[in-house]
Amino acid sequence: MKMNRQVVLASYVSDAAKPENFAMSESAIPEPGEGEFLLRNMYLSMEPAIRGWVDGKANYFEPIPIGGVIRGPSVGQVVKSCNQDFVEGDLVYALNHWEDYSICHSEAILLEKLKPETGIPISYYVGSLGGAGATAYIGLHEVGQIQAGQTVVVSAAAGATGSMAGQIAKLCGCTVIGIVGSDKKAKLIVDKFGFDAAINYKNDDVTKSVMAIASEGADIYFDNVGGPILNAMLPAMKVYGRIIGCGMISDYNRTDNPNPITNLWEMVSRQLTMQGFLLPSYQKKVPAAMAKLEEWIRAGEINVIENITEGFVNTPKAFCDLMSGNTVGKALVKID
Amino acid sequence: MKMNRQVVLASYVSDAAKPENFAMSESAIPEPGEGEFLLRNMYLSMEPAIRGWVDGKANYFEPIPIGGVIRGPSVGQVVKSCNQDFVEGDLVYALNHWEDYSICHSEAILLEKLKPETGIPISYYVGSLGGAGATAYIGLHEVGQIQAGQTVVVSAAAGATGSMAGQIAKLCGCTVIGIVGSDKKAKLIVDKFGFDAAINYKNDDVTKSVMAIASEGADIYFDNVGGPILNAMLPAMKVYGRIIGCGMISDYNRTDNPNPITNLWEMVSRQLTMQGFLLPSYQKKVPAAMAKLEEWIRAGEINVIENITEGFVNTPKAFCDLMSGNTVGKALVKID
Repeated sequence: MKMNRQVVLASYVSDAAKPENFAMSESAIPEPGEGEFLLRNMYLSMEPAIRGWVDGKANYFEPIPIGGVIRGPSVGQVVKSCNQDFVEGDLVYALNHWEDYSICHSEAILLEKLKPETGIPISYYVGSLGGAGATAYIGLHEVGQIQAGQTVVVSAAAGATGSMAGQIAKLCGCTVIGIVGSDKKAKLIVDKFGFDAAINYKNDDVTKSVMAIASEGADIYFDNVGGPILNAMLPAMKVYGRIIGCGMISDYNRTDNPNPITNLWEMVSRQLTMQGFLLPSYQKKVPAAMAKLEEWIRAGEINVIENITEGFVNTPKAFCDLMSGNTVGKALVKID
Repeated sequence: MKMNRQVVLASYVSDAAKPENFAMSESAIPEPGEGEFLLRNMYLSMEPAIRGWVDGKANYFEPIPIGGVIRGPSVGQVVKSCNQDFVEGDLVYALNHWEDYSICHSEAILLEKLKPETGIPISYYVGSLGGAGATAYIGLHEVGQIQAGQTVVVSAAAGATGSMAGQIAKLCGCTVIGIVGSDKKAKLIVDKFGFDAAINYKNDDVTKSVMAIASEGADIYFDNVGGPILNAMLPAMKVYGRIIGCGMISDYNRTDNPNPITNLWEMVSRQLTMQGFLLPSYQKKVPAAMAKLEEWIRAGEINVIENITEGFVNTPKAFCDLMSGNTVGKALVKID
């Protein structure tokens, strides 16, 4: 009998996530009930947000319990359906779980039925055309209110969301500065993703570097990291600037001891707006964002770097590698 | 010859402001030039924001230099004019200086020509009908987007701006919780200003106290203080809540060592919006705000507490008392 392999939580993660925090499990392949359909997952999306769900604390989602299957976005194909809107063979993106087979339904978070364009790999729909791309596009437009001619700074700029945010901001007619943690990434975001400038925060003073490039400061800061880089960006913002609170990865491995922010007075002094957001709140805006991103990708105006781990059993390692900050591009697992 | 008494900066303020940081000076009464008019100041408004201008550091205004006259809002009467829009006897509110006579002009920051209503004391126009009232009204409406039925938390709730913000929020149909630093102030804001509840942050856990009163948290936090109270309010906000960044008085006496904020992850997790603002950016909204506030005050729906210091020479002491946190109501100096 074919089984459903699953990655479950073995122990709560308290600092850096380690493969030992996870365990492999097997259960029977579930049967879809009324209104449900069964997906065979093809790609799992490795995302920093998942770190916030494995520490046993309430977050915007309930914490995953010990023994619980890890929650995460995936692209899968419908193999059995009791839902007339989803038929066998349909490709679906949604917030599912780290497992071979997931039960899904019409109200699933982040649910999108995919109609892959010729020439676009399916795997793109978990990253540049999935959560990362939609988050970047919607963050810049709905939260950042991006306008041509602005200066946009993006942190974690070599990552899945950051690299998309930078490229989208360029296509919107902005000057784009990326903040990264290595010279290799700095070169990559300029050469491959077309950023106007890159700052390696491990070598350079972020505030001074931004001001040296854009003397009036940034109109928009797309913040993926929080912590010391957010602190350094606050005095590098233009009056009335907007900070898009997308993620705070610098704190995810130290949730008990988050980095202190001491420059928040700049919020008043510079009359800044900071707005945190989560993609599911903008679900209605996703199809239009994806259509635009598909158009740009097809036209070769957006470059995508994927970091594909082969084999389901390597999922915990792929996630821990992502959280180490040493990877570039969209991290995903291809299920064998 | 009658002279113009002025309060000047004797030394930069580095922590708590002390009267010795200021000195009295005298100069000739200035003559208005083309387009200018001369005001005889009647009341000076003591405001925490002034603390940010006397430490020698760039802020949203240029720092006041050693020997420079202290900048601050006042209400005065036109005594000589070379500006056809302002004639002798007109009453004017504007960002002037701590002095008997100020030169003013049509482009002065915060400028309003006053038409005092019968039965409303002139002094109200430096506080409840001046910067404090306008800041509270505009902060709640333009930044907070206040709606009836919401839960609004106000810090420094016994102060000039906080007491107005709480009363305005009540008049907008909201449940209003005030945060203060003494039991005496807690009693005052409930008894005199009609807050629904008061929290003394020196005795009570702010997060737990807010959640005990409003189990879903606050829709709006009107933040006058920043620091530990802002930190405690972040986990007490409702999803999509709005934080009005009006002031951060907890840091004004320790600008070299601001209080660390460690709960900023809540911005993302709860999808909060924090927006800092300064009243001069909303100048066009001020007349409508004042008209509404005058109506409420005339109808007895807003109570005003004034903390009037008599005599120009007592201005530095009045300011330092305000910054000590031990006063209630609108601090102002009546010029003799």
